[in-house]
Amino acid sequence: MDVNLNLDTQVVPITLFVAVLCLCLVIGHLLDENRWVNESITAIIIGCVVGTIILIISNWKSSHFLRFDEQLFFIYLLPPIIFNAGFQVKKKKFFQNFLPIMLFGVTGVFISTSIVAAGCWWVFPKFGLKGLTISEYLSLGTIFSSTDTVCTLQVLHQDETPLLYSLVFGEGVVNDATSVVLFNAVQKINADTLGGKAALRILLDFLYLFSTSTILGVTAGLLTSYILRGLGIGRHSSVREIALMILIAYLSYMLAELLELSGILTVFFAGVLMSHYAWHNVTESSRITTKHTFAAMSFIAETFIFLYVGMDALDYEQWKMSILSFWASIGMYSSVMLLILVGRAAFVFPLSVISNYMNRVGDGSSKITAKHQVVIWWAGLMRGAVSVALAFKQFTLSGVTLDPIDATMITTTIVVVLFSTIVFGFLTKPLISYLLPPNTSNIDRTRSLKEDMTLPLLSFEESASEKSI
Amino acid sequence: MDVNLNLDTQVVPITLFVAVLCLCLVIGHLLDENRWVNESITAIIIGCVVGTIILIISNWKSSHFLRFDEQLFFIYLLPPIIFNAGFQVKKKKFFQNFLPIMLFGVTGVFISTSIVAAGCWWVFPKFGLKGLTISEYLSLGTIFSSTDTVCTLQVLHQDETPLLYSLVFGEGVVNDATSVVLFNAVQKINADTLGGKAALRILLDFLYLFSTSTILGVTAGLLTSYILRGLGIGRHSSVREIALMILIAYLSYMLAELLELSGILTVFFAGVLMSHYAWHNVTESSRITTKHTFAAMSFIAETFIFLYVGMDALDYEQWKMSILSFWASIGMYSSVMLLILVGRAAFVFPLSVISNYMNRVGDGSSKITAKHQVVIWWAGLMRGAVSVALAFKQFTLSGVTLDPIDATMITTTIVVVLFSTIVFGFLTKPLISYLLPPNTSNIDRTRSLKEDMTLPLLSFEESASEKSI
Repeated sequence: MDVNLNLDTQVVPITLFVAVLCLCLVIGHLLDENRWVNESITAIIIGCVVGTIILIISNWKSSHFLRFDEQLFFIYLLPPIIFNAGFQVKKKKFFQNFLPIMLFGVTGVFISTSIVAAGCWWVFPKFGLKGLTISEYLSLGTIFSSTDTVCTLQVLHQDETPLLYSLVFGEGVVNDATSVVLFNAVQKINADTLGGKAALRILLDFLYLFSTSTILGVTAGLLTSYILRGLGIGRHSSVREIALMILIAYLSYMLAELLELSGILTVFFAGVLMSHYAWHNVTESSRITTKHTFAAMSFIAETFIFLYVGMDALDYEQWKMSILSFWASIGMYSSVMLLILVGRAAFVFPLSVISNYMNRVGDGSSKITAKHQVVIWWAGLMRGAVSVALAFKQFTLSGVTLDPIDATMITTTIVVVLFSTIVFGFLTKPLISYLLPPNTSNIDRTRSLKEDMTLPLLSFEESASEKSI
Repeated sequence: MDVNLNLDTQVVPITLFVAVLCLCLVIGHLLDENRWVNESITAIIIGCVVGTIILIISNWKSSHFLRFDEQLFFIYLLPPIIFNAGFQVKKKKFFQNFLPIMLFGVTGVFISTSIVAAGCWWVFPKFGLKGLTISEYLSLGTIFSSTDTVCTLQVLHQDETPLLYSLVFGEGVVNDATSVVLFNAVQKINADTLGGKAALRILLDFLYLFSTSTILGVTAGLLTSYILRGLGIGRHSSVREIALMILIAYLSYMLAELLELSGILTVFFAGVLMSHYAWHNVTESSRITTKHTFAAMSFIAETFIFLYVGMDALDYEQWKMSILSFWASIGMYSSVMLLILVGRAAFVFPLSVISNYMNRVGDGSSKITAKHQVVIWWAGLMRGAVSVALAFKQFTLSGVTLDPIDATMITTTIVVVLFSTIVFGFLTKPLISYLLPPNTSNIDRTRSLKEDMTLPLLSFEESASEKSI
C-alpha cells in the first residue's frame, strides 16, 4: 500500500525492529546450550551490533530508529512482564517464604537506596559532577537498586534448590515494584524538607501505595474469576475467556496508574489471583493458552527492552555531551558499580541472619546457608530494564536530553546495565556451578518439570493431530 | 505513578477504552443466545452509547477519546484479523472451492466497484454534491465494495452447509484483500488518463500486487516452518515457537507494506502456510496456544474497530460540517445502500451460474443452489472495518478533515456501515433460518466441532489439574 510509504511513518522502524527481534530469538535459541551466554546478553549484544550498523549508515548521527519513550515502556512493555511473573509464580512457595521475600524485596531496597544515594552524593562531586539535587541523588539510589534477576533464574534449578529459587524470584518481583514506588515517593523530596519528617512521609507514602495497589490487584483478580465462573464464559468460547483475562489485567494496571498507585504491584497481584482462581474456572485449552501466551508476551517485551538498551549504548550524541573526561567517567562508573556491590551486600547478609533467626523453630529446610546468601547477593547485582526506564523518566523528556549532567546520568546508567548484565551475567553460570555443584541425576529435571503441562499431552498429540486440523 | 498522570498522555483514553472493551465482551457473552444480535452489533451499539455519554460530558465537543488514525488500523488492528483468518481457514475446502472463491472475491469486487463508482458519479451531483474527482469516485467504489462477513459466519453451520460456509468465508477474505489492493491501484488514476489504457494499467497493477504479495506470504510461511523444524525450537520452549510465529507473520505484513505490496494478502497466505506446515512442526501446547491466541487477538481487534465506529457515529463536528440538507443526506445514504445491493446482485447471481456451469461435470455437491446464491448475496451486504479505514485514508488526514465534501463522505460511510451492520445484521439470523431450516439433529454440531481440540482434553483435565499447577 503505497500510501503508507512515507518514511516519516512508523512502518520502517517497526519492520526493522521486528526483524531484529526475530533474529534475537533465533540466535538466542542457537546459543541456548552455551555455558556463558543467556538471552539478555544475546539481545544486548545484537542491539550493540545493530546500533553500530545504523550509526555507520546514518553517518554517525543516530544509533537507533525508535526514540525511547518511557511511556512506551511503562504502558506497553512492563505490564506483560510483571503480569506474567505473577501468573507463573509458584504461589505456595511464594507465600511460604513471604517474610524473607518481603525483607529482601522491601527493606533491602530501602537500605540499598540509602547507601547508593549517600555514596553518589559523596563521590560524584569528586569527579567534577556537581549540581544534582537531593531528590535526584535519592532517585539515583532507587534506579541503581532495582535488580534484574532473569539471568540467575535461568541457571537455578527450581527443584534442586526450591527455597533459593523462590527467594530470588520473589525478591526480583517485589524489588521491581518497591523501587518504582520508592522512585515516585522520592520525587517530591527537596533539600528544605529533608529530615526525619520527610523520611516518615516517604515511608507512609510507600505503605499507602503498597497496600492500595495490592488491594486493587486482588480485586481485579477476584472479579475476573467471578465473571469467568459466574457467567460461564468458557462454555461458549475459550477466546472470550482469554481476551477477558488479558483485558482485565491490563485494565487493572492502567487504573492503578490513573489513580497514582503502583501499576506494577497491582498487575502482579492480579496475575497471582488470576492464576490461582481464574485458572480453575476456565477450560483446559484456555489454561494452556494463557500460560504460554503470557510467557510469550513477557518474553517479547523483555527481548525488546534489552535490544533497545544495546542500541542506545551507542547513541553518539549522548556520549559527546558528557562533561567528564575519560578517566573521570571510568572512575564514576566504577564507583557506582562498587556502591551497588556494597549496597546489596549491606542488606543480603544481615537480613539473611534475621530471617534464619526468625525461622529457627522450623526443621531447618528454610534456613538460608552462607552459599545461598552469596547466590542471592550475586543474583541481584544485574541491572536491567527498570533501571533504564527510571533513568529516562528522571533525566530526559521523552527520551531527549540537552543537559550535559542529565546526559551523563543516562550514559552512566547504560554503562552499569551493560556491564552488570554482560560481565556479571557471564560469570553467573560458572559461579553457581561452583557454589552449588549440580546433582547430576537431577540436572534435567527443571526442563522436564517446565514442560509438565505438555508432556502428558504428547501421547495424545499423535492420534489427535489428524482430526484436529 | 504520579509522573504519568498528565491528562494529555495516553493513560486516560487507553484505560477507558480497555474498560469499554471488557464491557463489550461481557455483554456480548450475555447476548450470545439472542436470536437477533451478534457481536458486531453489540460493539457498535455500546460504542454509540459511550459516544453519547462522552458527547454530553464534553459539552457537545467530542464523542471519542481516541482520534482514529488509519495507521493504527493498518499497522496494528488489521494484521491480526487477517492473519487469524488465514490461520483458521479450512484449507482443504478453501482450495477445493478456489475457483468460485476467486470469481466472487476478485471479479466480484471489480464488477461491484464499477457499478457503485458509476452510480455515485451519476447520482451524487443530483443531491448537490459536486467536486469529486474520477479517482475519488473509484475509491468510493472500492470502499463500498469491501464486505464484512463476520455476522453471517456466526449463523452459518460449517458442517450442515460446508460449501456455503467455505464460499462465504473465502470470499470475505479475498474480498478484503482485493478491495484494499484495488483502492491503492485507483489512487493514481486521474480524469486525463482514464480510458482503456488506464483500465489495463489498473488490471496489471492489480495482478502484479496480487502475485508478489502472495509469493511473499508463502515464503514467510515456509521460512517459519523451516526454522521451527530445522532448528527444533520447540524442543526447548514453546514460548519461542509462539513468539517466532507471531513475529514472522507480523514482519511479513510490514515488509509487504514497505515494498508497496498488499500486506493483507501476504499475511493471509503466511497464516495459511503456517497453519499448514508450521503447525505440524510445533509442540502440542503451541498448537492449542497459537490457535486460541490468534483468535483472541483477532477478536479484540474486531471489537475495538466496531466500538470505534459506534463512537465515531456521534462525532458532532463531522455532522455539522456536512453541506447537504437532511433530506438530501437521506437520499444519498439510500442511493448508496441501493447501489451496494445492486452492485452485489450484479455479480453474485451471474458468477454463480458460471461457477455451476464450470462444475457441471461433478457430482453436484459443489452446485450453488438458488437459495445459496441468496445467502451469499446477503452475506456480503454488511460493510465494516475495512470500509471505514479506507474512507478515513481517502478523505481525512490522520482522522481530521476540514473539507465539507470530505466530511460528508466520512459520515456517509459511517451511516452505511452502521445501517448495514445493524439492520441487515439483525435480519441475517431469521433470513437464514427461513432459507435453510436447520436440521434439528445437527443443530449443535458446529459448537461441538468448534471445541474439538479441547473436548478430548476435558477428561484429562480433572486428573491433571492438581499436578500441573
